[in-house]
Amino acid sequence: MMRFFRKRAKKPGLPPGTMVHTGEATTQAVSVSCIHYNDKEMETVSGKAVTEEIRVRHPDKIAWINVDGIHRVEIIERIGEVLDIHPLTLEDVVNIGQNPKLENYDAYLFIVLKMLYLDEAHDEVRAEQVSLVLGEGFLLSFQETPTDVFDAVRERLRKGTGRIRKSGADYLAYALMDAMVDHYFLILEIFAERMESLEDELLDRPGPDAMARIHEMKREMIFLRRQIWPLKEILGQMKKTGPPLVKKTTHVYLSDVLDHTAQVVDAIASFRDILTGMLDLYLSTVSNRMNEVMKVLTIISTLFIPLTFLAGVYGMNFKYMPELEWRWGYFGLLGVMAVVALLMLLFFKRKKWL
Amino acid sequence: MMRFFRKRAKKPGLPPGTMVHTGEATTQAVSVSCIHYNDKEMETVSGKAVTEEIRVRHPDKIAWINVDGIHRVEIIERIGEVLDIHPLTLEDVVNIGQNPKLENYDAYLFIVLKMLYLDEAHDEVRAEQVSLVLGEGFLLSFQETPTDVFDAVRERLRKGTGRIRKSGADYLAYALMDAMVDHYFLILEIFAERMESLEDELLDRPGPDAMARIHEMKREMIFLRRQIWPLKEILGQMKKTGPPLVKKTTHVYLSDVLDHTAQVVDAIASFRDILTGMLDLYLSTVSNRMNEVMKVLTIISTLFIPLTFLAGVYGMNFKYMPELEWRWGYFGLLGVMAVVALLMLLFFKRKKWL
Amino acid sequence: MMRFFRKRAKKPGLPPGTMVHTGEATTQAVSVSCIHYNDKEMETVSGKAVTEEIRVRHPDKIAWINVDGIHRVEIIERIGEVLDIHPLTLEDVVNIGQNPKLENYDAYLFIVLKMLYLDEAHDEVRAEQVSLVLGEGFLLSFQETPTDVFDAVRERLRKGTGRIRKSGADYLAYALMDAMVDHYFLILEIFAERMESLEDELLDRPGPDAMARIHEMKREMIFLRRQIWPLKEILGQMKKTGPPLVKKTTHVYLSDVLDHTAQVVDAIASFRDILTGMLDLYLSTVSNRMNEVMKVLTIISTLFIPLTFLAGVYGMNFKYMPELEWRWGYFGLLGVMAVVALLMLLFFKRKKWL
Amino acid sequence: MMRFFRKRAKKPGLPPGTMVHTGEATTQAVSVSCIHYNDKEMETVSGKAVTEEIRVRHPDKIAWINVDGIHRVEIIERIGEVLDIHPLTLEDVVNIGQNPKLENYDAYLFIVLKMLYLDEAHDEVRAEQVSLVLGEGFLLSFQETPTDVFDAVRERLRKGTGRIRKSGADYLAYALMDAMVDHYFLILEIFAERMESLEDELLDRPGPDAMARIHEMKREMIFLRRQIWPLKEILGQMKKTGPPLVKKTTHVYLSDVLDHTAQVVDAIASFRDILTGMLDLYLSTVSNRMNEVMKVLTIISTLFIPLTFLAGVYGMNFKYMPELEWRWGYFGLLGVMAVVALLMLLFFKRKKWL
Amino acid sequence: MMRFFRKRAKKPGLPPGTMVHTGEATTQAVSVSCIHYNDKEMETVSGKAVTEEIRVRHPDKIAWINVDGIHRVEIIERIGEVLDIHPLTLEDVVNIGQNPKLENYDAYLFIVLKMLYLDEAHDEVRAEQVSLVLGEGFLLSFQETPTDVFDAVRERLRKGTGRIRKSGADYLAYALMDAMVDHYFLILEIFAERMESLEDELLDRPGPDAMARIHEMKREMIFLRRQIWPLKEILGQMKKTGPPLVKKTTHVYLSDVLDHTAQVVDAIASFRDILTGMLDLYLSTVSNRMNEVMKVLTIISTLFIPLTFLAGVYGMNFKYMPELEWRWGYFGLLGVMAVVALLMLLFFKRKKWL
Repeated sequence: MMRFFRKRAKKPGLPPGTMVHTGEATTQAVSVSCIHYNDKEMETVSGKAVTEEIRVRHPDKIAWINVDGIHRVEIIERIGEVLDIHPLTLEDVVNIGQNPKLENYDAYLFIVLKMLYLDEAHDEVRAEQVSLVLGEGFLLSFQETPTDVFDAVRERLRKGTGRIRKSGADYLAYALMDAMVDHYFLILEIFAERMESLEDELLDRPGPDAMARIHEMKREMIFLRRQIWPLKEILGQMKKTGPPLVKKTTHVYLSDVLDHTAQVVDAIASFRDILTGMLDLYLSTVSNRMNEVMKVLTIISTLFIPLTFLAGVYGMNFKYMPELEWRWGYFGLLGVMAVVALLMLLFFKRKKWL
Repeated sequence: MMRFFRKRAKKPGLPPGTMVHTGEATTQAVSVSCIHYNDKEMETVSGKAVTEEIRVRHPDKIAWINVDGIHRVEIIERIGEVLDIHPLTLEDVVNIGQNPKLENYDAYLFIVLKMLYLDEAHDEVRAEQVSLVLGEGFLLSFQETPTDVFDAVRERLRKGTGRIRKSGADYLAYALMDAMVDHYFLILEIFAERMESLEDELLDRPGPDAMARIHEMKREMIFLRRQIWPLKEILGQMKKTGPPLVKKTTHVYLSDVLDHTAQVVDAIASFRDILTGMLDLYLSTVSNRMNEVMKVLTIISTLFIPLTFLAGVYGMNFKYMPELEWRWGYFGLLGVMAVVALLMLLFFKRKKWL
Repeated sequence: MMRFFRKRAKKPGLPPGTMVHTGEATTQAVSVSCIHYNDKEMETVSGKAVTEEIRVRHPDKIAWINVDGIHRVEIIERIGEVLDIHPLTLEDVVNIGQNPKLENYDAYLFIVLKMLYLDEAHDEVRAEQVSLVLGEGFLLSFQETPTDVFDAVRERLRKGTGRIRKSGADYLAYALMDAMVDHYFLILEIFAERMESLEDELLDRPGPDAMARIHEMKREMIFLRRQIWPLKEILGQMKKTGPPLVKKTTHVYLSDVLDHTAQVVDAIASFRDILTGMLDLYLSTVSNRMNEVMKVLTIISTLFIPLTFLAGVYGMNFKYMPELEWRWGYFGLLGVMAVVALLMLLFFKRKKWL
Repeated sequence: MMRFFRKRAKKPGLPPGTMVHTGEATTQAVSVSCIHYNDKEMETVSGKAVTEEIRVRHPDKIAWINVDGIHRVEIIERIGEVLDIHPLTLEDVVNIGQNPKLENYDAYLFIVLKMLYLDEAHDEVRAEQVSLVLGEGFLLSFQETPTDVFDAVRERLRKGTGRIRKSGADYLAYALMDAMVDHYFLILEIFAERMESLEDELLDRPGPDAMARIHEMKREMIFLRRQIWPLKEILGQMKKTGPPLVKKTTHVYLSDVLDHTAQVVDAIASFRDILTGMLDLYLSTVSNRMNEVMKVLTIISTLFIPLTFLAGVYGMNFKYMPELEWRWGYFGLLGVMAVVALLMLLFFKRKKWL
Repeated sequence: MMRFFRKRAKKPGLPPGTMVHTGEATTQAVSVSCIHYNDKEMETVSGKAVTEEIRVRHPDKIAWINVDGIHRVEIIERIGEVLDIHPLTLEDVVNIGQNPKLENYDAYLFIVLKMLYLDEAHDEVRAEQVSLVLGEGFLLSFQETPTDVFDAVRERLRKGTGRIRKSGADYLAYALMDAMVDHYFLILEIFAERMESLEDELLDRPGPDAMARIHEMKREMIFLRRQIWPLKEILGQMKKTGPPLVKKTTHVYLSDVLDHTAQVVDAIASFRDILTGMLDLYLSTVSNRMNEVMKVLTIISTLFIPLTFLAGVYGMNFKYMPELEWRWGYFGLLGVMAVVALLMLLFFKRKKWL
């Protein structure tokens, strides 16, 4: 349940802009790094020196400040101070219960996204909040924990492949979002495989836990959709944002990642449809099997009950029962029983109950 | 039912603008208080003197008039007279069957909201109507009964923390609405906890009352959604209202509370989905268990019916039944019975009915 | 069925504007009355003189012509002639199969509404068509049968309370529509009470007719919604109509009645949701009870069948059955039977089938 | 199935504008007629002379060319040539798999409609395609087979009643569409009657074929809706088309027929809702009855099984069974049996199973 | 599952514009051909010479470059280079997991479509990606494998029938899309036939695999709809694209194919509705039959159980059982049994259980 609704640590009534970290308490160190780059050179600073570095901005360079870990509120506050970030923005950065969204603060765009990964231990998808602050000439990125999703972008920056070193902070923001959406595909691939094996299992040996698993996967789909769906609107809004924050040349790239997001959302919808179909199929298969069992069992009972009655009749102790004295009475009755049983079987057969 | 539809005390046909209090009759005293404040000073008046106070307006100060209790129609009428409020507005203030809404009367905005709290006694969410009248330089707030939701805002006003003393009546209105939305989160937290314990119970020992509880919670969700959903539109309309009623600097705060409202609405939708899933799971679990029981019982019957038939045959009193004379007839038949029972068990086993 | 779809008495192919009364034939007299009023005086004319009266219009007064009974086509035709009403309008006035709608004929607004009342005899809601023609300085209203819904408005006109005598024909139209919407609330109240008593009954003693009643009420909701829903759009269109037909000062009143209509529509939607929930609850309660019964009955059978088998065995007539000769054979077997029964009961208990 | 999807006779890959008749092959003669009329005079030409007639257009008259039968492609081609109709239009005229639609070719409007009639033999609604080409001063109408739906319009033209002779080709097009929509009402009336008798039957004696009939009627509703729904958009587009094709004076008539169409669509939606309700009611009635039957039967079995066991016990052949020797043993046991049966009946009664 | 979601071969994090072929690896040769044509002449080049040919563009001719097979990335790259195609376009051409879409790159339109064919072996619809690049004076088309769908267009080009040789590249693009949509109709025809035979089978002998087949067909419909639905939007966007890429004279043809697409989408929706109806019908038929079977069987049991009890009573060995001594006791009991059986049958009959 808690994945769908995040308790607010902040006490109701606190003034807006109060920063309260709402994630799980952790003692992990917070790592801050800053990469300055332009077409020709690139420089990386990390640790405490970062804030000093930001203070002396390089007007001809793009600055990417990445913060891994958001539980040390005072670090984020200092960065916000130096770069002139609105307190409401900082409040949302540390409050991990946000839905994905884009807010235009004129001086910068504030984007909240969800990084998804599969928690193998609990076998469910978990979401970590990634916040981006895209200003003129700088990009701030905040992650709850260090992940390797942005490593490929860092690598491209170092090598200078592609357009990344030649473009602005908006292209960098695009590159990060693209990396995250590519990551969504990995999650979907795992689900596609699971669904396929689940379907095989359903056809082979439908058990009661299969249904629980289908329900679980449907719930995962609700969760995934809720995390990814808003991204479409965010990208649409980004494209509408004019320069200087988002340049026209970046639009085609935003369209591209929007297109991929639409594919993901589409696939989730299809998965839900298929899971619903599987559930229906499972339920009617189970009920069919059950019905078959009951039918066969009831037929067996029905077959023997009249025969037992006949046996009961000739088990009676009346003094005058002429049949009992007949020489072939016993074998005759056995014959009658066989005939009755046969007739009933024929009747069932003709009615197609067997 | 009555939570979903409020009887109208007003007799059909009364002229519009007739004030009729529609809540439960109460003899509680009505408390009226007025806070005048600006950046430098703050003053509180309460009781009967308030209306006099309003008459002499302080043009350099913001006035917040709060009325706890709306059953004394004449008090509200007098305030409305002094501040030049439209009769239709006053009619809606005392008629607690309103849906949340915003009405722009040019001279002021009239906002109807719902304060939600959990009625522990009846174990259901109850809504109290809170009406705000946001004019130039003043804010009127009406509550059905005194609550402590606005206390934090009062506290902030007294201490002068944050922007509240430096901003206008629109910021004050925002602060009250923010406090109410923060309160909604508390309700949701309680529901999230209940759903989690209900889910555990369903897995442990599914009973018929679990289903009733799920249905009840679904109904609560319908109720919650209906109370909270219109708030999104209200906030959107407020942002569209230009100065002097709503200043541009307040927009970012309204966006923030709009964002929180969206989170609440979203969580309610997820809760409904999850409850529907739980219901489906419960129903099929129950039907599965039932089917299992019936199957086992039917198998037992089916096993014994042919054996009983055999016993019946040799219980017959025919004179010429050669088997009855056989030395080992009895034990032979017991053996045959054991073989028949075994064969049937094997058949059931192979069919996977056991 | 006929409430949902009204046969068209008009033969297909008749030229448009042909007036054909489609209600049930009636011999009731048609009553026509005309009220002329302004701020200072008020005058009522009725009967045949009305048409003469209309001919000599009082330019400084508002004229409200009310027609109770629409089966006398020629009367309506004459009024239409005098006031220059389009033939298509008149055709719709007498054809009671109209959906609620507003049509702007430039010279006047034509509004079709539905007056709802509860037909106690058939226990269903019935709709009567009320048509309004709002022109400059006059209002025409047509009802199928005389009702007392407009009496309160007439009373207010006579007494001159409120704004009604000081306002134009558009305010009068508003007053009539407000009276009708207030009347809708009465219908809803009756339904709210019925649903509550139905719910109590469902919990107490769920019977098969309860379900039929729920279905019936759902159908009533479909019917109600269809009659009331279009009113929202009608009122929206009226607000968009500029002067001289609808003055700006009337807008706030139209918003008010629009708001009430939205409350009604909302309540209907909630009622449908609740009824659906009640149906689900009923169905699963019934199926639960049924399952319980079947389980207990089957357990009883299952308990006795093995015992009957044992009795059958010792009822056999084999010559050599050593147990039969044993001194304590009979009592021993009774003991064995008791033990078997106990073991089975224990097994059922442990499986939680009892 | 074939009503929902029409095979395309045209081989894929043929160039657009290739006319291929897709209806059933027929040898029926094609009848072509042309009516020239204005306020003062009216003239009818038919047969082969029509094309010659069209060539010499009467600029002061309206021409209505009606073609009954569209399987003779060359006739339609010649008319198209003379009146300068686009090949794509002619392709759609003879391809009866079109959905209702309006296409604006600037020089004329091309309208495809569906004439509905009840095929008594197969007991299902069938649709015939009617195409209208509304140009300046002329109207072309194409029907698959001759019907009498347009006769009333022809009659009005001849008699000169109403506005028809005084108005343009757009009014004529309206008159034809109005006649068709009036015809839709006839279909709905038949369905309303059938639903009513079906409902009576369901209450009286619910049989398995009732459900098949409900399903069939639901399918008919899907079919009807699909044929009629697009007409609303067509009429809306027609109103947006400016002069000279559609004059302003015709708008009020188009609104009128639009209104009737909305009534039809609305009624279809209601019918579907009601049919769904009937289906639910039927299913639960059947399942209720079934449950009752099973319950009674199971109770009978349950009543006799313990008694049979008792009889079985005293049918055993143990040597030492003291009860067998008792003087009143037999009658005592009969008494015990009666008491057991009574107790069980009481138990069932108290549990409300009887 | 894999039809609904295509694994992305591209490793997350690769720079955008990296071309990675995502289809199944194949060793089939890639065939490239180029047709230059105008009103007067037409010339075909194929193989490696194509790229040279493109380099020397014929400004007075339209060039159609068709590539069958997209697994040789370097070929597509070279063509892209020569014609100045954006790397993101080329990436999408070789990545077959695209949804149908249109992207406007100003210099050209990039259109992704799906060619559908029925895979007889797996009995499911498969989609192949067809990409079109529509520039000024040229059209690029890419197919995964060579198909014969475009042959008819090629034939028309060669023969010069219709408008095709006289029109621009936009008309050629239209012709290809029209051929594809015509192909969709073939698929639908096959499904319409299958549904009809499935329905017949359901009425004749409903078996458990029928339901699996219905489910399968519903899934096919989901798949089809997802592939075809976006085409409507694509065609709408194409119509909005101004010259020089799409000329005004082409609009009427685009409307025509849009209309056909709407027919296809519509038919798919109808098919889904019908399949849902068939499923409902099937399920209730099966459950009805099952209920009938159980009822008859239970009635047989119920009939014999009391009779068996009676036989059991007179099988008891009490010493004093006067009936046993009666002369006609045995035959009397047989009579009583017959009467009991008859009464029960009558009771069942009157209750309409038989």
